[in-house]
Amino acid sequence: MSPVSLLLSDKAKARFDAFSDGVFAIVITLLVLELHIPTGREHLASELGSEWPRYLGYFVSFAFIGGVWIAHSTISHFIKAVDATLMRLNLVLLLFVSLLPFTTGTMAAHLFTSVLPLDHLTEPQPAFGPERLAVVLFGVNLTLAALMTYLVIRHVDKTDELAATDRVEEELRGFKRGRGTAVVLQALATVVGVFVPLAAVVVYLGLSVFFFVDPLWIERVRRRVGSHKT
Amino acid sequence: MSPVSLLLSDKAKARFDAFSDGVFAIVITLLVLELHIPTGREHLASELGSEWPRYLGYFVSFAFIGGVWIAHSTISHFIKAVDATLMRLNLVLLLFVSLLPFTTGTMAAHLFTSVLPLDHLTEPQPAFGPERLAVVLFGVNLTLAALMTYLVIRHVDKTDELAATDRVEEELRGFKRGRGTAVVLQALATVVGVFVPLAAVVVYLGLSVFFFVDPLWIERVRRRVGSHKT
Amino acid sequence: MSPVSLLLSDKAKARFDAFSDGVFAIVITLLVLELHIPTGREHLASELGSEWPRYLGYFVSFAFIGGVWIAHSTISHFIKAVDATLMRLNLVLLLFVSLLPFTTGTMAAHLFTSVLPLDHLTEPQPAFGPERLAVVLFGVNLTLAALMTYLVIRHVDKTDELAATDRVEEELRGFKRGRGTAVVLQALATVVGVFVPLAAVVVYLGLSVFFFVDPLWIERVRRRVGSHKT
Amino acid sequence: MSPVSLLLSDKAKARFDAFSDGVFAIVITLLVLELHIPTGREHLASELGSEWPRYLGYFVSFAFIGGVWIAHSTISHFIKAVDATLMRLNLVLLLFVSLLPFTTGTMAAHLFTSVLPLDHLTEPQPAFGPERLAVVLFGVNLTLAALMTYLVIRHVDKTDELAATDRVEEELRGFKRGRGTAVVLQALATVVGVFVPLAAVVVYLGLSVFFFVDPLWIERVRRRVGSHKT
Repeated sequence: MSPVSLLLSDKAKARFDAFSDGVFAIVITLLVLELHIPTGREHLASELGSEWPRYLGYFVSFAFIGGVWIAHSTISHFIKAVDATLMRLNLVLLLFVSLLPFTTGTMAAHLFTSVLPLDHLTEPQPAFGPERLAVVLFGVNLTLAALMTYLVIRHVDKTDELAATDRVEEELRGFKRGRGTAVVLQALATVVGVFVPLAAVVVYLGLSVFFFVDPLWIERVRRRVGSHKT
Repeated sequence: MSPVSLLLSDKAKARFDAFSDGVFAIVITLLVLELHIPTGREHLASELGSEWPRYLGYFVSFAFIGGVWIAHSTISHFIKAVDATLMRLNLVLLLFVSLLPFTTGTMAAHLFTSVLPLDHLTEPQPAFGPERLAVVLFGVNLTLAALMTYLVIRHVDKTDELAATDRVEEELRGFKRGRGTAVVLQALATVVGVFVPLAAVVVYLGLSVFFFVDPLWIERVRRRVGSHKT
Repeated sequence: MSPVSLLLSDKAKARFDAFSDGVFAIVITLLVLELHIPTGREHLASELGSEWPRYLGYFVSFAFIGGVWIAHSTISHFIKAVDATLMRLNLVLLLFVSLLPFTTGTMAAHLFTSVLPLDHLTEPQPAFGPERLAVVLFGVNLTLAALMTYLVIRHVDKTDELAATDRVEEELRGFKRGRGTAVVLQALATVVGVFVPLAAVVVYLGLSVFFFVDPLWIERVRRRVGSHKT
Repeated sequence: MSPVSLLLSDKAKARFDAFSDGVFAIVITLLVLELHIPTGREHLASELGSEWPRYLGYFVSFAFIGGVWIAHSTISHFIKAVDATLMRLNLVLLLFVSLLPFTTGTMAAHLFTSVLPLDHLTEPQPAFGPERLAVVLFGVNLTLAALMTYLVIRHVDKTDELAATDRVEEELRGFKRGRGTAVVLQALATVVGVFVPLAAVVVYLGLSVFFFVDPLWIERVRRRVGSHKT
């Protein structure tokens, strides 16, 4: 038993789960701190109305983190132990997840700029405006978190000692393909953000909600198309 | 075993519990951040005194979240597994629970407006003032969280694979009726908020404390009335 | 099995532990947010120096919460199930624990007032200054949290269904006496705060550290005195 | 069974793990609150660019806490029970870990001072500038946290009742040596901070990343050197 095997353990798995659940729970709850409480007294309705980019960002990140958490507990369901690589990949995933309140807040603060009063438009805008940069930054964060989710699943899939049973292999593979597609779609949406920032955020929301509501819808579409072909 | 069954698992239940406990614990603790620390040096007593709407909001939300957490761990006690629908319903419940620090803070910031010095009243008030809007918003949030609690229980009740034993069915039904009544009472209190904001907040507090102290008091009242009739 | 028995369960105990651990962990970590990061550029050393009441408050609350957490996990070690009363007593304990960042911050912000430059003293001070009020408020919070800790242990002690084994009864009683003494000592220290605020905070720190380092020192003193008498 | 043995228990170990995981998860997530969301509208890119000391601090603390968490769950893997001393040593470790958002933020706020516009340099700098103090403070915090990690492992190593099996002893000793080296290296890096602040932060980052990526690299180097000698 070499020192490297230290972390290959079913006991370490309980802590792997607990720590990950903790970070997911905290990040999803910290998002609420980015919703600023309006303090003006007379125009609460309009104040709340003008804050809609924050609510949009809140729902994107909540749905996205919810979806990643579902993926994470599904992976956890497949495995009986964790190894040193899985722990490190997971910590990098948690790094990108825990950055989301920051990039969500930055996106929300600058999505305002496209819905400002018209008189603001008389000033010349910079070539690559803050709105675009903020939306792309948010998209890159979502893409990297999706990518790490995929890499975590791929590592579990290719490491025999981790799988709980042989039977789950095919299921795991379908799940892995689904998360791989999520990475590609999220990356494409981020590219859209370079040209049409607001549209990109709506696509982010759509993707996050889709993968939240039904993590396997892409897999099902693929199968249906495949069965039509045969 | 279809891919959809991925999440029907007793292992997933441990993470369902851990993640939910995490979010409940964080939200109930984040509420304290809405209690502003007074920084004036000479009039601490009066500063603390004028902050009473925050303390009122704090106690409403603490009691409400405490009550929902008790309901949640009671449900968890009834089930032996979770399915994909339960996980999603639960995440939507957690969404509304994690919004509470925001709506509590908004309510507290605007409940001030009715206790302002008299000279403020000489200005014409808007038709649907910020106080009403903030109190109704808070009430809607509480109602939606109560509704999701009810929907989670209803899903467990009607899904045979989730129940731990057949014996608990009748108990579960009584518990479900109790939480259904909570939704209706909370919705009615929110309607009161349209007309008498401050009274509504007091009713919110009463309801939250009642369901916290004795989640089954309504069920008991119903039974006593029923046994009188027969 | 009446509906009231719903919550008497060893499964509910796992969630009771998890939720409590979550709240303790969050509160003890949120304390750091009350340590303000100095932003002045030239006088960092003096800025840090003038912030000492915050560091004092931080250590009091950290040691106190650490001590209550040790007491809490010791109780948890004695019991095999939780009932509805225990869950509610525990939530009230967590209420007072989660208020600590607020009362610690208030105390720290006003303990400054006694170490202000002399010219400030030319203004007439109010009869019951903000410093006293803030220190007493902090002491009352600590006392109520200590009282709830005691009440939780007392409830476990007098409820036969909760105890894990009969053997632990005597140990539990000694532990209960220790926590009862803690309540009395903390209440006395709070009374000291009415007259000598700064001294009271030092006593709070001493008590918290003592109960943190050795929860049973009072019990041991009592025994030694008792064995001398016989 | 003396009262002191109260805490020597495998049940207490579950709470020891849960509480520690909670604190680690919260601290690692709270770090994101020190990343200020830029609010200026026209120069987002340059605003983000000038914030690099915050990102540097974020990565140092994230990698460091990640590494300590891996060490902590590895220790937890070795033991079957906790005693009173372990619980207290662990709480002191958590104290230094939970101070990290404060010292990271202080360091980040003052690392700016060395990259300020040149006109600032015309003013005479204090002998021991704020930048040095902030970097050394951060280094001392990292060193103390590393030291407590080492002391926790040492206590487990020398307390026979805690070890899960005899077989792990040699592994545990290698792991302990690795963490001991971490303390010495981190202390040396802190001394570097007195003379070359920015370089020290880069060394902090390097050490944290190394112990995160491979906690046993030092042990392996030692062995290779040892086997060459024989």
